[in-house]
Amino acid sequence: MAGSDPFSLESIRNSLIRQEDTIIFSLIERAKYPLNPQLYDSRCSIFPGIAGSLLENFVKETEAIQAKFGRYQSPEENPFFPDNLPDSLVPPQSHPQVLHPGAASININKTIWDIYINKLLPLFASEGHDENYMCISACDLECLQALSRRIHYGKFVAEVKFKDAPEEYSPAIHAKDRDALMKLLTFESVEEMVKKRVEKKAKVFGQEVTLNNDDCNGKFKIDPSVLPRLYGEWVMPLTKHVEVEYLLRRLD
Amino acid sequence: MAGSDPFSLESIRNSLIRQEDTIIFSLIERAKYPLNPQLYDSRCSIFPGIAGSLLENFVKETEAIQAKFGRYQSPEENPFFPDNLPDSLVPPQSHPQVLHPGAASININKTIWDIYINKLLPLFASEGHDENYMCISACDLECLQALSRRIHYGKFVAEVKFKDAPEEYSPAIHAKDRDALMKLLTFESVEEMVKKRVEKKAKVFGQEVTLNNDDCNGKFKIDPSVLPRLYGEWVMPLTKHVEVEYLLRRLD
Repeated sequence: MAGSDPFSLESIRNSLIRQEDTIIFSLIERAKYPLNPQLYDSRCSIFPGIAGSLLENFVKETEAIQAKFGRYQSPEENPFFPDNLPDSLVPPQSHPQVLHPGAASININKTIWDIYINKLLPLFASEGHDENYMCISACDLECLQALSRRIHYGKFVAEVKFKDAPEEYSPAIHAKDRDALMKLLTFESVEEMVKKRVEKKAKVFGQEVTLNNDDCNGKFKIDPSVLPRLYGEWVMPLTKHVEVEYLLRRLD
Repeated sequence: MAGSDPFSLESIRNSLIRQEDTIIFSLIERAKYPLNPQLYDSRCSIFPGIAGSLLENFVKETEAIQAKFGRYQSPEENPFFPDNLPDSLVPPQSHPQVLHPGAASININKTIWDIYINKLLPLFASEGHDENYMCISACDLECLQALSRRIHYGKFVAEVKFKDAPEEYSPAIHAKDRDALMKLLTFESVEEMVKKRVEKKAKVFGQEVTLNNDDCNGKFKIDPSVLPRLYGEWVMPLTKHVEVEYLLRRLD
């Protein structure tokens, strides 16, 4: 893709497809460990002196460091705990100004956090706890950041779609008609294809690779059927939600 | 493996095999970005007010947080910057005391850091820079921690091998004969098999999965031949180095 416009519809589609791999890798890594519900429980007494859940504290502190090193200068990145983040020590990078400034006010990470902890994790993490709190928190952060990046990429998707056909979107934007915008952004056959692809990827990346056999006896590191559910119930609807929010601000 | 002894030779072998996947996933993620040599240059003037390279600073600060959340209570984890790490806020976990106490003094992360930055990265990261410093630093940390965990796992390998046949290792330990120990720990046919397996894994996990075709046209996200080199030249020799160091302390 060297030399091509990184914000063409094709480049953006390629990025979304590549981000599927990142999401699946991170879920496979998290699936190594059991659920460890204490990690997510803000009333958990095994972490004395820590208010809020252990994961919450870990993510807050890690995001503060990542902010210092410039993570949130990128319009592709959205923090889970945006309040009181320190300034970046790294001078502003030359991110091309692609998005409408209204994009900065769209952050649905609270919803993503809630879905990840309460709906997605119980689908694939085995019950129980092994006290590997730190390794699991690091895996959770990877998963959360990968999902957040993918879903908020809807801002770029919406910008490219709008630029390609402003006349198609402008009436619904002016009318603040969310339903009409959602309809314009929904392509069921594409969504079905994405769901099939992520399931196939989970099978390929989650197989146990050995030198002897080329089939994996149906054993996968993460149940492949979790992926089409994740995409069908949450990733794609939330991406479109971000797209709608972006379009509603696009003509401000 | 539920219920089985996590420190049997078989469990340890299974862990080493599973860690191959983690290492390959993390390298594939790093390969998304070009090299960005500024990130590793301690004299780089684009980060005013920061002494040391950006990656060094990022890893130091992240390790400090991870220490607070208990990472280095686990005998499987070794910090890259062990000086002045804060105490853990999390109460001591019930890690079984498997290793000889001498294990704690073995930390070859300086060597691993040097090899990763100066030898491994140039083998697979494309030239150039894209200023994605923070995302790359996070990928580098994943790679470094995965390699460090794998290589220092040699402590557990050595312990199990010693316990299985103390009479085989004790004379060389008493004689402080590193060469003899290295010979006892080297199984060339096994090493060849590992190299073949990690190359195959890189092909499987690094392919572009699409719904239409099941071959990947020879396009991989990371050159699969990097993996047998990584394992043959660095991972396996360094693991054996850790094993020798551990055995030399085993009878103290």
